[in-house]
Amino acid sequence: MVPGLGSVRASYPRRLSGGQNGGGGGVSRASWRRRGAARCFGEGSPEKKAATNLQHFFNYVAVRIVLAQLESYNREAYVELKEFVSRTSLNDAETFCKNLIRESPRHKGLAMRILEVRSAYVKTDFEWDNLKKLSFKMVDEANTKLMRDYVLEVSHIEDENYKT
Amino acid sequence: MVPGLGSVRASYPRRLSGGQNGGGGGVSRASWRRRGAARCFGEGSPEKKAATNLQHFFNYVAVRIVLAQLESYNREAYVELKEFVSRTSLNDAETFCKNLIRESPRHKGLAMRILEVRSAYVKTDFEWDNLKKLSFKMVDEANTKLMRDYVLEVSHIEDENYKT
Repeated sequence: MVPGLGSVRASYPRRLSGGQNGGGGGVSRASWRRRGAARCFGEGSPEKKAATNLQHFFNYVAVRIVLAQLESYNREAYVELKEFVSRTSLNDAETFCKNLIRESPRHKGLAMRILEVRSAYVKTDFEWDNLKKLSFKMVDEANTKLMRDYVLEVSHIEDENYKT
Repeated sequence: MVPGLGSVRASYPRRLSGGQNGGGGGVSRASWRRRGAARCFGEGSPEKKAATNLQHFFNYVAVRIVLAQLESYNREAYVELKEFVSRTSLNDAETFCKNLIRESPRHKGLAMRILEVRSAYVKTDFEWDNLKKLSFKMVDEANTKLMRDYVLEVSHIEDENYKT
C-alpha cells in the first residue's frame, strides 16, 4: 500500500510480516499494533487519551458558541466573557471553567451556560462520523504528500547532479 | 439538565430559550449552536479542526508502536529511532516525518514504516465508537465535578461564616 515499503522490510526484517511467517499476517499485525498501542498508554487507552484531548477542544468550541450567541443580544455579558477569555488560557478546559465559576456570580452564570453548551454540542451537534471520515482521508493525503515531496526533492537533486 | 441553569436564564435572558419564545426550543437551540460553531471556524469545520489535531496524536501512537515492535527484535533500529525521537518534537506530525525521511536511508525506512502503521491504526485499530462513548461520559463527569467542587467549596465557606 505504501510505496517503498519493500526497502523497509529488507533493512528491518519483521517477525510478524505475513510473507515471513506464512499466513495470518494481517490479523497478527493488527493485534501486534494493538498490543504496542496498549503498552504505550499504561494509564489509559489511546481512545481515552484522545477523548481527553477532545474535551479541551469541545470546551473551546462551547466558549466560542456562547460568545457568538451573546454578541448578538447581550453585549454586556459578551464583553464580560470576552474580557475573561482574553486573560485566561483555554488550553485546560477544567481550569478555565473552575476559574470562571469563581470569578463573580455573573461569570458563574456564564460558566453554567458553557457547561450546558459543551455537553449538548458533544452529544447532538458534533459530527462524529464526519470526524472519522476526515481522519481516514487526512492520513492518506498526509502520507502521499510526504512521499511526493521527498521524491520530487530527490529527483531535483539527481537532475542537478546530472547537469553538472 | 444542568443544575443552577435557572439563574443563567435569569441574568442573561436567552432569545432562543424554549420557555421564552414558546415551542421548538430544542431545534432552534441546536441550529443556533451549529451556526455559532460554523462562525467560529471560518477556515474549516470543527470536525476538520478536531481531525487535524487527532492526526498528530495518531502519528505519536504510530511512533510508539513502531518503537515497541523494534525493541523486541531489532535493537539497532530501536536505538536509532529512539535517539531521533529524543531530539525531535512529536507535536507536529508532518514536520517530524519530513525530517525523519531526510535523516538517512535507514531513517527513511523507519519513516515509511511509521506512515504505514499510522494509516493502518486509524483505519483498523482505533476504536472510534469507544472515543465517542468516552467523550459523552467525560463531558458529563467533568460538568458534575466542576459543580460539585464549587458547591462543596461554597458550603464550606458558609459553614465557616456560621461558626464565627
